[in-house]
Amino acid sequence: MTPGFGNLAFIVDDPFLILYLGHLTLRYSPGSACRSYSKGIIQIMHSLSATAEAHPNIAFIKYWGNRDNLLRLPTSGSISMNLGGLTTRTRVIINSSLEADRLKLNDRIVRGEGLRRVQSFLDVVRLQARTDLHAEVITENNFPSGAGIASSASAFAALAVAAARALGLDLSDRELSCLARRGSGSASRSIPAGFVEWIAGEGDADSYAVSIASPEHWNLVDCIAMVNANRKATGSTEGHASAGTSPLQAARVADAPRRLDWCRRALLTCDFTALAEIAELDSNLMHAIMMTSIPALMYWEPPTLEIMSLVRKWRAQGDPVFYTIDAGPNVHAITTSDFAQVITSRLRAIPGVREVITASPGGGAHLSNE
Amino acid sequence: MTPGFGNLAFIVDDPFLILYLGHLTLRYSPGSACRSYSKGIIQIMHSLSATAEAHPNIAFIKYWGNRDNLLRLPTSGSISMNLGGLTTRTRVIINSSLEADRLKLNDRIVRGEGLRRVQSFLDVVRLQARTDLHAEVITENNFPSGAGIASSASAFAALAVAAARALGLDLSDRELSCLARRGSGSASRSIPAGFVEWIAGEGDADSYAVSIASPEHWNLVDCIAMVNANRKATGSTEGHASAGTSPLQAARVADAPRRLDWCRRALLTCDFTALAEIAELDSNLMHAIMMTSIPALMYWEPPTLEIMSLVRKWRAQGDPVFYTIDAGPNVHAITTSDFAQVITSRLRAIPGVREVITASPGGGAHLSNE
Repeated sequence: MTPGFGNLAFIVDDPFLILYLGHLTLRYSPGSACRSYSKGIIQIMHSLSATAEAHPNIAFIKYWGNRDNLLRLPTSGSISMNLGGLTTRTRVIINSSLEADRLKLNDRIVRGEGLRRVQSFLDVVRLQARTDLHAEVITENNFPSGAGIASSASAFAALAVAAARALGLDLSDRELSCLARRGSGSASRSIPAGFVEWIAGEGDADSYAVSIASPEHWNLVDCIAMVNANRKATGSTEGHASAGTSPLQAARVADAPRRLDWCRRALLTCDFTALAEIAELDSNLMHAIMMTSIPALMYWEPPTLEIMSLVRKWRAQGDPVFYTIDAGPNVHAITTSDFAQVITSRLRAIPGVREVITASPGGGAHLSNE
Repeated sequence: MTPGFGNLAFIVDDPFLILYLGHLTLRYSPGSACRSYSKGIIQIMHSLSATAEAHPNIAFIKYWGNRDNLLRLPTSGSISMNLGGLTTRTRVIINSSLEADRLKLNDRIVRGEGLRRVQSFLDVVRLQARTDLHAEVITENNFPSGAGIASSASAFAALAVAAARALGLDLSDRELSCLARRGSGSASRSIPAGFVEWIAGEGDADSYAVSIASPEHWNLVDCIAMVNANRKATGSTEGHASAGTSPLQAARVADAPRRLDWCRRALLTCDFTALAEIAELDSNLMHAIMMTSIPALMYWEPPTLEIMSLVRKWRAQGDPVFYTIDAGPNVHAITTSDFAQVITSRLRAIPGVREVITASPGGGAHLSNE
């Protein structure tokens, strides 16, 4: 039994018995039903709700493609930086009167695919918590949703922490990272703090992320140039599933250990030039896979290309800046805190750039006061 | 001895003796010099000059990367269509008074790298012709030079045909294709007519192109959208040499036989949809290699991306059109003759498109009246 729960063997003939006693809930879960009575368990729940916060992250070595789409086991490891200041805050309220999970994002009720993905994730948590209680999930981002900032990473990291606590699970960071991964692969990387490596692992229990350096290790800044998009991008989940159709994906995966070593070393030694070279190469490699998949996925827009070109030009002129691009048209221009203001100004002046958001290395996902 | 030449052993003590007799030239080539006289050979040249024409071509399965950069032996085969109407016309005049080769392109004297590449190519022809005579090369394109239409293909195909004839070589189409390849890999494909496959081969003598269908086989039209370019592109020769630095190139090469089969079958059966799918994939594969090479090569400009997106959209709406892009920013929108006018109009309306040139399947390289 996990901490936070107590269990009583019990015999009762009302299969819907639930007792609310202040912050304690006694909930009857039916066992094998007989004609006149049922055997069951009463769970004494210590926590009815929990709130957690998490940051999105930007990968320098990208995650693209799964060995197992259901478990979201990646074809290779990845390395990222949490984006401090950009925060998803999620409250999970266990409500035994609910017949289904509910989701509210930025004060709007979410239905359809968005809700189903959260429900599937909560099913995973419920299985671990051995319960079938439904939840109300109330989540807010302090940054634009669907802006190409990988909000699913912070969303499922915060949801994992909050849902686990609300359902009485007491998980280690490693277990939380594994759990978050089930909602969104990159969410596994938003659990630990600072600069993070997601170890591909072999199975569900050993595919998780660890911190390789604290947020204070390096004063990098991500200047995110938000680009006007003509097209709606293919979602990442669908994209991951198509990665294997590229005749180049196996070669990219085979080459991943070299790039991971290169990037980890660059991060640990604060070698900007080395990080710039490997991060731009790795970003191009991921987009090379995308555009050679069937059907081809092209996430870049004309301004994306313009920014990439200018960033390369600025670096050639001596400024510490490189680009990396996720499954969308926005360009993450990574620089140091000394240069963040000038890079941001230059990005804002480029036609087609709608807004520039900056973020410094952020901490890990954590519980928060409600 | 090659046909077209006769030789006389001769002893003379004027090392600069040259006799012009109408269209015959007697030229003294000094052998081992002695104090009072020289032993040598007089070559009786039957041909003083020759003119040839050739078309550029657009590849559906691209050539990118060499097994041997000097011999321009490709890592894999390729398939293309000659672009009729776009013509390079080249006259080669053997002039025994010249101390070095000369090159005139569109009435302007060319020096530097452009001249050196022609000189290196003429060295190959001279080696075959067993001569050391220099040439004046006068060449004209009826289409914009350096416009991203692969003018080096038509240039070296026309030069191969004209120089071989002027220096008295009588070569088969296969031999001419091998020879043209030494100047520019894709020039091998501008020797045969219509739809052409370049067989990668094993060595210098069996890496050549053959016609797989005549120009009349299929009424395709190439609508070439010329794009305003901010940057000067890296030349193809340099690019080919860097292809092996991409961690994806080996996978692209290994997959080439599948794509060649797919494209050849699509061409032979006039299956537009199949050709569209494989040609766009293959183009994306080549650019995937370029952008993941070290240093990264990015030939696309913002309008390139815009046109690619629109072409895909038009095809999704039912119009027979696909894109393919060479080592430059221009987009070749391939359609059928029925749709050429509407596609051309649409392309002209896209901001950043400077001009649209159209071309139908063209014939092979051939001698021309002077």
